[in-house]
Amino acid sequence: MISRQQLIEQIKQKKSFLCVGLDSDIKKIPAFLLEYSDPVLEFNKRIIDATRDLCVSYKPNAAFYESRGIKGLQCLIDTCKYLPADCLNIIDAKRGDIGNTSDMYAQTFFNESAAGMSFDAITLSPYMGNDSVTPYLAYADKWIIVLALTSSAGSKDFQYLETGDGFLYEAVIKKANTWAGADRMMFVVGATKSTEFTTIRKHAPDNFLLVPGVGAQGGSLADVCQYGITEDCGLLVNASRSIIYASNGEDFAEAARAEALSMQQQMEVELEKAGVI
Amino acid sequence: MISRQQLIEQIKQKKSFLCVGLDSDIKKIPAFLLEYSDPVLEFNKRIIDATRDLCVSYKPNAAFYESRGIKGLQCLIDTCKYLPADCLNIIDAKRGDIGNTSDMYAQTFFNESAAGMSFDAITLSPYMGNDSVTPYLAYADKWIIVLALTSSAGSKDFQYLETGDGFLYEAVIKKANTWAGADRMMFVVGATKSTEFTTIRKHAPDNFLLVPGVGAQGGSLADVCQYGITEDCGLLVNASRSIIYASNGEDFAEAARAEALSMQQQMEVELEKAGVI
Repeated sequence: MISRQQLIEQIKQKKSFLCVGLDSDIKKIPAFLLEYSDPVLEFNKRIIDATRDLCVSYKPNAAFYESRGIKGLQCLIDTCKYLPADCLNIIDAKRGDIGNTSDMYAQTFFNESAAGMSFDAITLSPYMGNDSVTPYLAYADKWIIVLALTSSAGSKDFQYLETGDGFLYEAVIKKANTWAGADRMMFVVGATKSTEFTTIRKHAPDNFLLVPGVGAQGGSLADVCQYGITEDCGLLVNASRSIIYASNGEDFAEAARAEALSMQQQMEVELEKAGVI
Repeated sequence: MISRQQLIEQIKQKKSFLCVGLDSDIKKIPAFLLEYSDPVLEFNKRIIDATRDLCVSYKPNAAFYESRGIKGLQCLIDTCKYLPADCLNIIDAKRGDIGNTSDMYAQTFFNESAAGMSFDAITLSPYMGNDSVTPYLAYADKWIIVLALTSSAGSKDFQYLETGDGFLYEAVIKKANTWAGADRMMFVVGATKSTEFTTIRKHAPDNFLLVPGVGAQGGSLADVCQYGITEDCGLLVNASRSIIYASNGEDFAEAARAEALSMQQQMEVELEKAGVI
């Protein structure tokens, strides 16, 4: 569990707002790990050990674990238990369903006695509105992270539709901010759209934004910071593939650390520039 | 695997377009089942045995299984294997993510060798657009069921936003129908909004519509049929709680059958009225 204030403290201490995405694919991890009883867990542990002082957040992507069935779910459970308590640990699940079903998903990922997992935050899809998002808030110390503007080509299909209330993604941010404060609610904002950060900050001046798309997906950290950073930082920038697959050899963890360190150093510059540290 | 033509044949043979929702909650099933090694699996098997000649589809809700961790996932896998091959078996998962993640979710639920499950169809959230939906179409015989208009209060938050292209739910239907034909694509349309079926049929004249909200959520079967039925039927009407929890005693399966039979009989009248049978 990590509050907004604790998150900001972590960012200042570590001089980093890096989130490491654990999109760990058994087909892409170094072959020598396959001799372990759970190769992906071994991979994740070594990535975590190599990067935990350089990042403030981890984000396992549920799909990569679910696709391996029982073994994959056990790996997700064990990975969750291994995540450092001083980090904001996000399950990237993008759920979104009616109230009684949201209650079940909230149990799944927030209530350790239900399914063995206690993440600090979950990503959610807003399409079904209020009751698909607010049940998660019953867990007093947990965060919800609502999809606003995503970074892939398909984001153009609906998120940029003009509504009477701005683009759809603007309407989502405005409405969702009536459901919870910036101490519980974040938004996913794709980094390939850095000019839109100005618009987003108009509607979400205080919310932390989870920003995927830097690294493998082509976004620029400097652009993101120019338009998105606040006096509390207000950003978690995620990198997955560019860090965890930095090398495919026995040195994969060192290579991941080098990549994370390079991002942390760029982030330190941006934090200083913005007066956060 | 069940094609559009096979689904229509099943509807005509069984004189039913009922989908039984397996939102099976270990806290709500009859207490005497708790002595079984997997009480929910035992519950599901008896519900399936009691209703399989009266319905054309089953729809386990993923959240209810995921919330019990490893045991719940094993139950979902075993339930999937037990579902009748002549039914359209839907996993109600409401996933929606970028392309490489959608690939993983498609494996999870469509590729038996990945996670032990091979459903015929999956529910998907459209918010992230094209690449969050189309990867599932790589599985040639499978269906995707896209959220359009849902039945809970939160549906008003975004689905009714006016866009340049009608309400958001209309824009979703129009766009999604450019991604696949009515032989692969269905839409979720909440039954509490039966007057909107006219609008929806304008954009989706041939698609099957998966209609939740009849029964416990208060929608009317007659209204749904008046506006939504087509010459191929074009409807799957889901009932979950009203069937599976019809009784909490030892007679729960008989009570579920009685409730399913009552719905089937109403459906038979509607199918005759519409000239489908």
